[in-house]
Amino acid sequence: MTARSKLLLAVPVTWAGLWTTPLAELASDLDVVVQGRDEYDPKTIDYALGFRPEPGMLATLSSLKVVFSLGAGVDGFLIDPNYPKHVPLVRFVDHQLSREMAQYCVMHTLIHHRQQRMFDQFQREKKWRQSVPPRRTEDTRVGILGIGEIGTMVAERLRDHDFRLAGWSRTRKAIDGVESFAGHGELAKFLGRSDILICLLPLTADTRHILNAKTFAQLPKDAVVINVARGGHLKEDDLIAALDSGHLAGATLDVFETEPLPESSALWSHPKIMLTPHVAAISDPRVMAKNAVDGIARHKAGKPLENVVDFARGY
Amino acid sequence: MTARSKLLLAVPVTWAGLWTTPLAELASDLDVVVQGRDEYDPKTIDYALGFRPEPGMLATLSSLKVVFSLGAGVDGFLIDPNYPKHVPLVRFVDHQLSREMAQYCVMHTLIHHRQQRMFDQFQREKKWRQSVPPRRTEDTRVGILGIGEIGTMVAERLRDHDFRLAGWSRTRKAIDGVESFAGHGELAKFLGRSDILICLLPLTADTRHILNAKTFAQLPKDAVVINVARGGHLKEDDLIAALDSGHLAGATLDVFETEPLPESSALWSHPKIMLTPHVAAISDPRVMAKNAVDGIARHKAGKPLENVVDFARGY
Repeated sequence: MTARSKLLLAVPVTWAGLWTTPLAELASDLDVVVQGRDEYDPKTIDYALGFRPEPGMLATLSSLKVVFSLGAGVDGFLIDPNYPKHVPLVRFVDHQLSREMAQYCVMHTLIHHRQQRMFDQFQREKKWRQSVPPRRTEDTRVGILGIGEIGTMVAERLRDHDFRLAGWSRTRKAIDGVESFAGHGELAKFLGRSDILICLLPLTADTRHILNAKTFAQLPKDAVVINVARGGHLKEDDLIAALDSGHLAGATLDVFETEPLPESSALWSHPKIMLTPHVAAISDPRVMAKNAVDGIARHKAGKPLENVVDFARGY
Repeated sequence: MTARSKLLLAVPVTWAGLWTTPLAELASDLDVVVQGRDEYDPKTIDYALGFRPEPGMLATLSSLKVVFSLGAGVDGFLIDPNYPKHVPLVRFVDHQLSREMAQYCVMHTLIHHRQQRMFDQFQREKKWRQSVPPRRTEDTRVGILGIGEIGTMVAERLRDHDFRLAGWSRTRKAIDGVESFAGHGELAKFLGRSDILICLLPLTADTRHILNAKTFAQLPKDAVVINVARGGHLKEDDLIAALDSGHLAGATLDVFETEPLPESSALWSHPKIMLTPHVAAISDPRVMAKNAVDGIARHKAGKPLENVVDFARGY
């Protein structure tokens, strides 16, 4: 018989049930307390599961053994200057999450490649206007910023449609049919060949505001930008300027510096921007709960944890 | 040295250059005349290349040896009651065409599956509204009416995204991961399991108006219909009624009974319909020209022609 342990769930209280129900089903030896809803003694918390806990909160949990992120990105933890670095932080890595992201990226890449937004406009205007001949996918160069688990699947699904692919990452990657560019020295060359740029990077000090005026100027004329990583990657004003100058042809944004995006934002009504409310990849709470329960079991059994964040690297 | 032969190009005169230029480059022993632009003696025409020739016209070409279709569908030829049935009709089969169709079908299937049109509406209203949790592709059953060269590629590209697939065709097909339904006896069962129905059928007497009120009633509630085959497959009024009753959730249409779609059509402004002006798959005129030139060379060399239409079957 294993000892009981205590998990702190740090999520908005109204959504807590999405995780407490599967956690109760999966781990009868786990006591789950919800931050902001339940009373608890900070010294008794063994594990934490959340997305963007209040800075300083984790440091008060003196018995904390492992933190599990509910997202693939862990910038919501690393912005906490008091994050207790002796406590391992586990990223959420999930095939389903990668798949959802690949669906979103394939859909929006095709929408831009095939000018579906122009046809939507023709429909509103009741205009029958064909554009002949169409551009071929081999002639559209897609560049993926960030080639990890998710970026690799996005590349594979786009490769199925014969897009011309390249990836940019910290270290060189070998993926069949995907030209690899590595490090800041090769960024300009990578951008210069990217008609559609997809950002899937982790948000770190190094990648914050990487989608800026200088980056956009290095893309070919009429390029398109798709940001599905974090709002912090994008200088929103620089994007609007590059679209308004006519250099960029369009953008799809799923993430924003401030979420929910304020109603006053100029992004909402920009004619060249498609935006969605951070829904590109939403994981199944049951899978997230299972992931944490499995991690806790590994930790209790003394086995090494998987997908532990490298604090120096930032992801 | 081979004898010169004469090809009649039956296309709108303003577009003729798209084909005459590559034909001249590819076949120096071929004299090309354009219907409606050039003078010619009907008795001297050896080959014809077109899409929807004026009924009765082909019957006047007494030396005609082979007709090449510019489209994958040949209904534009078979509606001619005087089509000279002793002259073989060759369908246009092209990997590029199948690919373009697969892109279009994947894009629109994902747009419906992920409710992108709802998010477009939220954007216009500046509403930040997430829908949690999303539907998984394994839980969305896509049914493909017509599993030939194009349908197979559409199925394969959708399978990459893990949709639950089935195909319906005249004869049973074996495609990995695609449940096969065959013949009219299995149509109702096929429809009953299709949340998204994609029509890729050839247009024949047997398939005309196959997308009708009875068919829609057999689909599950909130099903979606995508028609990329021919306008003649769809009873447009039945579709509008099924959308308005709330039984169907949406539709994507690329083809119409009358093209260009008249400005007076109710389809243009229906809130549940996305429509595009017959652009799902537009082949490269050079590839079409090459296809005809290769067919003519085979015919002259006495070799069997490929992709010859079975007049009894209708495709």
